[in-house]
Amino acid sequence: MTENSPRRSSRSVGQNDYVTQLGPGRPRLEPRRRAGQTPRAEILDAAAELFTSHGYGNTSTRAVADAVGIRQASLYHHFAAKDDILDALLGETVSTPLELAGKLADRPEPAAVRLYALAWYDISQLLASRWNLGALYLLPELRSDRFAKFREGRDALRRHYETLSAAVIAEAGADAVAGAELLPFRLVESVINMRSDEGAAPEYAEQLIPDAILRLLCWTGSLVETRVAALELAAQFPPDQD
Amino acid sequence: MTENSPRRSSRSVGQNDYVTQLGPGRPRLEPRRRAGQTPRAEILDAAAELFTSHGYGNTSTRAVADAVGIRQASLYHHFAAKDDILDALLGETVSTPLELAGKLADRPEPAAVRLYALAWYDISQLLASRWNLGALYLLPELRSDRFAKFREGRDALRRHYETLSAAVIAEAGADAVAGAELLPFRLVESVINMRSDEGAAPEYAEQLIPDAILRLLCWTGSLVETRVAALELAAQFPPDQD
Repeated sequence: MTENSPRRSSRSVGQNDYVTQLGPGRPRLEPRRRAGQTPRAEILDAAAELFTSHGYGNTSTRAVADAVGIRQASLYHHFAAKDDILDALLGETVSTPLELAGKLADRPEPAAVRLYALAWYDISQLLASRWNLGALYLLPELRSDRFAKFREGRDALRRHYETLSAAVIAEAGADAVAGAELLPFRLVESVINMRSDEGAAPEYAEQLIPDAILRLLCWTGSLVETRVAALELAAQFPPDQD
Repeated sequence: MTENSPRRSSRSVGQNDYVTQLGPGRPRLEPRRRAGQTPRAEILDAAAELFTSHGYGNTSTRAVADAVGIRQASLYHHFAAKDDILDALLGETVSTPLELAGKLADRPEPAAVRLYALAWYDISQLLASRWNLGALYLLPELRSDRFAKFREGRDALRRHYETLSAAVIAEAGADAVAGAELLPFRLVESVINMRSDEGAAPEYAEQLIPDAILRLLCWTGSLVETRVAALELAAQFPPDQD
């Protein structure tokens, strides 16, 4: 990279991928770079943008390679096929909340605090991701064997929510609606729909949804105290480093 | 159609679309027919199956015509382009609940009864549809101008849920979570995700979700009485005939 190289850019693909430098020195063509520290991360970022903005079925590995500014052969060095890219992207959305859920399962804190911590963390990462990857969860392609491992991970996460929610209902001791433990996971994932409809991450959801989950489970304690305890608890378990 | 014609069939496409008749008389090839009373309905049914099972981006109008057993030119007589088929399918998922919501808006019944009736009806029709069309709501294609009218309809339905939910909170008089009125619409649409994950319509959702919605809004009345009143109310407003 020379001093004249363009900086990493977050502009949309679909625009011209080569820019003419108009500063001092002769004009030159240089591929722009994607967000990401490594070629693999750049491929994932470009694919995530294309899958969520043009559609998975409409995006070829060639289009992903073009958006990164590499040859298709170089892309295949990192990912053998398009579904390997999708699997890597979707896996990231589930792996860190699932890791946290595993750590929270045996903690001594009340279930309401642990459920709040999990929901808050999961929503935060669904909102913080650069692209709304959860919008790909309903792709029919995910029902194939190729994505069995991803489905198992998401099912395991859902069961953690259901177990914690049932424990909150038991702690609350009130007459919750039968089957209510199935819904907190669904409310958490609804941030994906909010983000899609609103065109932006709905920041208010980070607090609204965990608060509403506890009320839905007929839990009547202090939301403020629970929120403080939950955020402290989540902070004790930063994601593992790769 | 002769007496030997196969009956309308609900089997999946992707199997052989032509069958050999093994009854009396010589074996013959005959295209099977889709569910639906009219060619237009057959096209919509075939497209709904292909869009939800193979993906919208992966489905051509040629594939839809083949699945119906008609020429592509005949399909274009009914729909000028693939996005016209998608628009018709999605429009159906919103038009009848929106119609009911409009009729409920001015009714004298308590907001809890009206919200319950709307949620129950909306969930029932999301579950009763032959294909899980709501799984297409997150397609990036829907953000284009072509689908502005569909988005407006769904937004109007969402606002009806928010208005009714805010009225339930006001009636309940309890301290609901700030912003809770945004969530009932999301809980209703979560049946789409349940249906996708479970591979079948989750019949329990028809009661679970409206019940849970009222509890989430901190409404503490009798769910049984409200359910009975809501179903009676919904029954007074059957969908308009075309």
